[in-house]
Amino acid sequence: MKHTAVDVIRAKRDGEILSDEQIDWVIAAYTRGEVADEQMSALAMAVFLNGLTSAETARWTQAMIDSGERLSWPVSTVDKHSTGGVGDKITLPLAPLVAACGVAVPQLSGRGLGHTGGTLDKLESIPGWRASLSSAEIRDQLLSVGAVICAPTEGLAPADRKLYALRDVTATVECVPLIASSIMSKKIAEGAGALVLDVKVGSGAFMKSLPAARELASALVELGVAHGQKVAALLTDMSVPLGRAVGNAVEVAEAVDVLQGGGPADVVSLTVALAAEMLSLAGVSADPAAVLASGEAFETWCRMITAQDGDPSAALPSPKHVHVVEAPRGGVLSRLDALGVGVAAWRLGAGRARKEDPVQAAAGILCHAKPGERVTAGQPLLELHTDTPDAVEGALAALTDAYEITEEAPAKTPLILDTIRG
Amino acid sequence: MKHTAVDVIRAKRDGEILSDEQIDWVIAAYTRGEVADEQMSALAMAVFLNGLTSAETARWTQAMIDSGERLSWPVSTVDKHSTGGVGDKITLPLAPLVAACGVAVPQLSGRGLGHTGGTLDKLESIPGWRASLSSAEIRDQLLSVGAVICAPTEGLAPADRKLYALRDVTATVECVPLIASSIMSKKIAEGAGALVLDVKVGSGAFMKSLPAARELASALVELGVAHGQKVAALLTDMSVPLGRAVGNAVEVAEAVDVLQGGGPADVVSLTVALAAEMLSLAGVSADPAAVLASGEAFETWCRMITAQDGDPSAALPSPKHVHVVEAPRGGVLSRLDALGVGVAAWRLGAGRARKEDPVQAAAGILCHAKPGERVTAGQPLLELHTDTPDAVEGALAALTDAYEITEEAPAKTPLILDTIRG
Repeated sequence: MKHTAVDVIRAKRDGEILSDEQIDWVIAAYTRGEVADEQMSALAMAVFLNGLTSAETARWTQAMIDSGERLSWPVSTVDKHSTGGVGDKITLPLAPLVAACGVAVPQLSGRGLGHTGGTLDKLESIPGWRASLSSAEIRDQLLSVGAVICAPTEGLAPADRKLYALRDVTATVECVPLIASSIMSKKIAEGAGALVLDVKVGSGAFMKSLPAARELASALVELGVAHGQKVAALLTDMSVPLGRAVGNAVEVAEAVDVLQGGGPADVVSLTVALAAEMLSLAGVSADPAAVLASGEAFETWCRMITAQDGDPSAALPSPKHVHVVEAPRGGVLSRLDALGVGVAAWRLGAGRARKEDPVQAAAGILCHAKPGERVTAGQPLLELHTDTPDAVEGALAALTDAYEITEEAPAKTPLILDTIRG
Repeated sequence: MKHTAVDVIRAKRDGEILSDEQIDWVIAAYTRGEVADEQMSALAMAVFLNGLTSAETARWTQAMIDSGERLSWPVSTVDKHSTGGVGDKITLPLAPLVAACGVAVPQLSGRGLGHTGGTLDKLESIPGWRASLSSAEIRDQLLSVGAVICAPTEGLAPADRKLYALRDVTATVECVPLIASSIMSKKIAEGAGALVLDVKVGSGAFMKSLPAARELASALVELGVAHGQKVAALLTDMSVPLGRAVGNAVEVAEAVDVLQGGGPADVVSLTVALAAEMLSLAGVSADPAAVLASGEAFETWCRMITAQDGDPSAALPSPKHVHVVEAPRGGVLSRLDALGVGVAAWRLGAGRARKEDPVQAAAGILCHAKPGERVTAGQPLLELHTDTPDAVEGALAALTDAYEITEEAPAKTPLILDTIRG
């Protein structure tokens, strides 16, 4: 049967379930440019409003995988994907840690958009470091170092790359089947033997509530299972920034602290928890906390950065301008809102508004206090870094309601809220 | 407030009512090319699925009118718009008839797409006839002849022209607020003093059922009233082709028969009924049946065609190939389906699949019997005209279930089903 874009759009518009052939055709034809952007965006809106069944989502994902190459690796591999948060530099210590535990990590990462940071943007603050590798370079580095963090290869799920850019400008982003198929098509095409998902929950996350995050996590795990992927998902808190550093160079510095045995407790604890889940899925028994403490993960980090032409011992860029926000009164910092801090860091230059914009390596925020910690009036609370002092005013506006100092300490919220296994 | 396309799409996606400012902005920015096609198609799908209120539709219509020029005329004018049908050549005798009754008709028409014919395509089968006129030429001809049938000027509702082409490829056509705003923005910008709408109902029409057609007619009349337009709508049957001719040159010939005092009863009767409604809205008392019989309408026709470089006495193109479908048995023709005949004529070359396709002037169908008429076995039932004999097979396939011969005569269905006045 001959398909047309109008027939497929009309079917979904009218609430029908798309056939496997319709899904295969529309994704392939869109990748080839035969289905136009304006047709795909109408279909995306119809999907947004009328949904996709689990079976449709699985087929859609398969079609996006089939739009490009599917990588495979000569060693046992495991990967992690985060749905994005504020101060989420976990990939940086995690990839070398898991590699040091004996399972290779081919981490094909993205760049930041909006208030959530991008792993590649952070790593690019390291002098000389290179994000783009060929498949052969990735393979060599997996064998020699065990860990790679780099940009996706061109051939990986091109349908998703096109569709993701389109959804961003057509208000069709916040849709579980489209989010889930986007994430899983890239991750399955990437070919890692197992996959752990870090689904963020809270103001700084894409999913603001636990039920919404759980729905996404379940969809992701279900999709993984449908494609024979070993998979698990952690639901983790993103109402507060992770660690004390939010930005690019400042997050790399914090990741290095963690790899050298220091760093904030939440970053250490989430890194170790995700490593344990990844190792368990990969069937390797190792104690990631002990390996982290041994310095082996830091050694792997240095080799990983060096293999991609970066200098792990070089000084990181420092900002041209620093603005300190002082505590207006003494007490306990009872709230530090991830979204407010994320937006402020973005405005300081750490993130981008459009995907073609550059980011400032040195821009970001240091949180001198985290919720639950005592502060005295006038002490530094937040340290704003930027190369463009004009940006400070907008950043301060985003921070106006982002923190609170009270008499009483707030209730402690757990970092890991739930785990969903395939 | 600064608007963005994503904000407007998101609001309608989430079921919100768009503000006047949002509507004005999005239509103007789309016309300027600042809102991209893929964004407008996502918005159109959100409108399709979540609707527009009457107030939103009125504002949307106003914004589309404001995207271009609004014409005005130095004489009293009235216009008619049909939602499109099979064999619907009524505009051809109607415009000169109303002009001969004393009210000028500036009829800015469209081309056919799909199985419904286009007035301009039909008239272009007259040797020399020219569809494109400048505003000044239209004005001069309204003063000298009283009737003009031509293509819309470039400056007329450009937002609608862009959006209409977009909706056609994104399955967002069949949506009452979008149809109504499209029709009324063009017709109000056209500046006629009064407007009669012929809303077709039945298999060959856009609206297949009377309730759906009534909904559209009410939306159109309501929009007209909201914009201070004198307006009325007739709901008329389109389950059977109008007249005996479906196509281009064959419909012109039938229109000329009507203007010369002959022609099929249904075409005569609908022409006179629409003329009466138009004259009444324009406040002119005249007897269109008498004027038609007097030959004055035919004289106006000849002057109208001549003014646009056509030769009203020239022979019309004849087809290279004629295929006759004979009655398989004797009895009464109890059914002749407008959609089947329309699709067959389209496939013979009378219509186009894409707007850039040419049409065949000589292609079409003559219906030698109409429902209620007796036929004998072997008599010619349908005469298929085409320049491309290969097209006959597809046309015959469309006609397979399009007619029925029975013992009993079918119940008569009225041609004019209802009238809705503003």
